[in-house]
Amino acid sequence: MSENKALVVLSGGQDSTTCLYWALDRFGSDNVSTVSFDYGQRHRVELECAASIARQARVSNTCLPIDTFAAIGGDALTDNDIDIDKNASAGGLPNTFVPGRNIIFLTFAAAYAYQRGIDNLVTGVAQTDFSGYPDCREATIRALQQTLRAGMESAIVIHTPLMQLSKKETVQLAVTLGALPALALTHTCYEGERPPCGQCPACKLRAKGFAEAGIEDPLLRA
Amino acid sequence: MSENKALVVLSGGQDSTTCLYWALDRFGSDNVSTVSFDYGQRHRVELECAASIARQARVSNTCLPIDTFAAIGGDALTDNDIDIDKNASAGGLPNTFVPGRNIIFLTFAAAYAYQRGIDNLVTGVAQTDFSGYPDCREATIRALQQTLRAGMESAIVIHTPLMQLSKKETVQLAVTLGALPALALTHTCYEGERPPCGQCPACKLRAKGFAEAGIEDPLLRA
Repeated sequence: MSENKALVVLSGGQDSTTCLYWALDRFGSDNVSTVSFDYGQRHRVELECAASIARQARVSNTCLPIDTFAAIGGDALTDNDIDIDKNASAGGLPNTFVPGRNIIFLTFAAAYAYQRGIDNLVTGVAQTDFSGYPDCREATIRALQQTLRAGMESAIVIHTPLMQLSKKETVQLAVTLGALPALALTHTCYEGERPPCGQCPACKLRAKGFAEAGIEDPLLRA
Repeated sequence: MSENKALVVLSGGQDSTTCLYWALDRFGSDNVSTVSFDYGQRHRVELECAASIARQARVSNTCLPIDTFAAIGGDALTDNDIDIDKNASAGGLPNTFVPGRNIIFLTFAAAYAYQRGIDNLVTGVAQTDFSGYPDCREATIRALQQTLRAGMESAIVIHTPLMQLSKKETVQLAVTLGALPALALTHTCYEGERPPCGQCPACKLRAKGFAEAGIEDPLLRA
């Protein structure tokens, strides 16, 4: 039954990993697969994390290449000539903004799903606690779902289980879903460090969520 | 003034070339640039055509790579193991359908435009005479514009000057815009032949438009 199959966009981070466990709970492990994107990100360790997380959850993980963002240039995540501005974002977008990144990820995921009769996409975007990325917002995702349905004549549904959750609530959800052990395998740090640097905006946001939930981050024990 | 700059998605075909001349007329040659995509299409001659057309029009042409469609697989245009089904489409989509292709092209074009302060995208999609591709329809393009505006916090406008035109009217528009000589440089044939095979659906559709407009196709004189 194609309507019961789900494809999780798995970045190797905390949020998408929690979404994987949400999908396993909702659709059953036989019906879940994952896709990751090798788009020229600075920290390819994310892709190794995604593969490990999928392996631990016993679901497939397909890594699709995207060589286009690096050719477009101009952002700090894929352009090694640009330093990440840790203090960005008062007003403007942080320079880690890759324009259209989530739109592209979800559209390629939808194309991959289309070819395999999968009607459900699951993504870990959240507009609460979001880091200034407009392509993570509810309005963008809803417009994109409409675009994909019209453009592919498909019944695709984009599930965003974390959309309205704070980082604290996301940690609590991970605990409920039994995803906590898998979070030890995730990568969050913008500096690419393992153990994480603890100082970059991504590390701080993650630490805040665990602190507020009163849960120890298993990554820091690893 | 960024609102006066335009980026034309130039495939090297008749429609996008006509759109280039529409953009030159509307925005002025100093404000127009073009982008093409090397996405693993069977007929790379399209990219050479796009470069020649841009050169003749004295505008820049950037070719962006997309290695993702070939990795996803399953369509006849990018997968050389699949034969093009010339008789497809009664009911179903033709097997030249690359799911999400135009959504991806326009999103990457929007990302490229975003980095350069360009607010206008121009694309040659048309829902009249369309070959069964749902991502060429007005509803898809309008939903995508909304997605891109929300997802990039931009004022992007997607112009589709051919959307409601028949192939005959597109030929007439090309004549009006002085684009006819440039059409000698375009590529249409699905078989990749030059001179065109005249038998594939793309060749037949093109020939029908010129015939109905009572204009000789300059490509056949070339």
